[in-house]
Amino acid sequence: MINFPPFPPRGTLVEIEEGTQLQPKFDERGLIPCVTQDATTREVLMVGVMNAEALALTIATGEAHYWSRSRGNLWRKGEQSGLIQRVVRLLIDDDQDCVLLQVRIDGGASCHVGYRSCFFRALAQLGSETDLTLEFLEQEKVFDPPQSLSHRTGWLTVDERADLLTANVRRDQITHE
Amino acid sequence: MINFPPFPPRGTLVEIEEGTQLQPKFDERGLIPCVTQDATTREVLMVGVMNAEALALTIATGEAHYWSRSRGNLWRKGEQSGLIQRVVRLLIDDDQDCVLLQVRIDGGASCHVGYRSCFFRALAQLGSETDLTLEFLEQEKVFDPPQSLSHRTGWLTVDERADLLTANVRRDQITHE
Repeated sequence: MINFPPFPPRGTLVEIEEGTQLQPKFDERGLIPCVTQDATTREVLMVGVMNAEALALTIATGEAHYWSRSRGNLWRKGEQSGLIQRVVRLLIDDDQDCVLLQVRIDGGASCHVGYRSCFFRALAQLGSETDLTLEFLEQEKVFDPPQSLSHRTGWLTVDERADLLTANVRRDQITHE
Repeated sequence: MINFPPFPPRGTLVEIEEGTQLQPKFDERGLIPCVTQDATTREVLMVGVMNAEALALTIATGEAHYWSRSRGNLWRKGEQSGLIQRVVRLLIDDDQDCVLLQVRIDGGASCHVGYRSCFFRALAQLGSETDLTLEFLEQEKVFDPPQSLSHRTGWLTVDERADLLTANVRRDQITHE
């Protein structure tokens, strides 16, 4: 484990909003939300959280690390599945309380259900107060996770299960984009 | 105020993850996070939260509504500033605990600081444990918010202040993309 220096203390509003130093704000649980998108297509792949160690490791290694709320530990995305997220760019929002990662994914899939993105469904129509039908945006799964494992891992959040599920799929079964 | 029917109760794991009905999960505060991106460029513009009413209004009107945590009320984005977010598509993630909006913005800007996106800065380099320098990705502001108002509104979160700030900028000063 590398011993990272702590992130700098938060400065004035102007320093935070218009300055040139990363001064991330962690919430009362020590977490900061992170949106992750494909670096090329800009497709949003997933939304997770990071603690200070996960953010520091992401910066130092260039590979996305998150904090697993269900397991209560550090989570290197793709550690078991091979679907590592290689960070092309790390952005921060104006008040520095949300991270945005632009990544390349080794395996072409990010979501444990088998799709490229966790956001694989959209509301079929807007303007209705009663029709909440979803339509699938991705027609085919990148991989087909084994159902038995899916059930066994019900105690994990779905994003986290991706690593366990894909670990049971042979690497050559995964389609590369 | 329209009286929306409540969202359907959450079903089984399979229904939630692979079904065709919106069954959003609100947290213990009654909120669900929402990532908002430009419908054309896929640029991530902001991250906010919605309560059930904000989500229902977004679906019914096709205009993005959020919940303002600092003000404790419903927040129709652009109500004062004119920078309304018109929803092209509303997506939900696998476990239905995060919303993704793809929008068109009337005014070309989304961030109260004056930039198109709230994520207008990125880490200048990855791979360092000590250099946390940020670089600006947007060279010019879409609008220049008055500083005096910026100071007066310090009690609001920055995303929410965009509406107040841009309300003080003449509409014809705002560059349309």
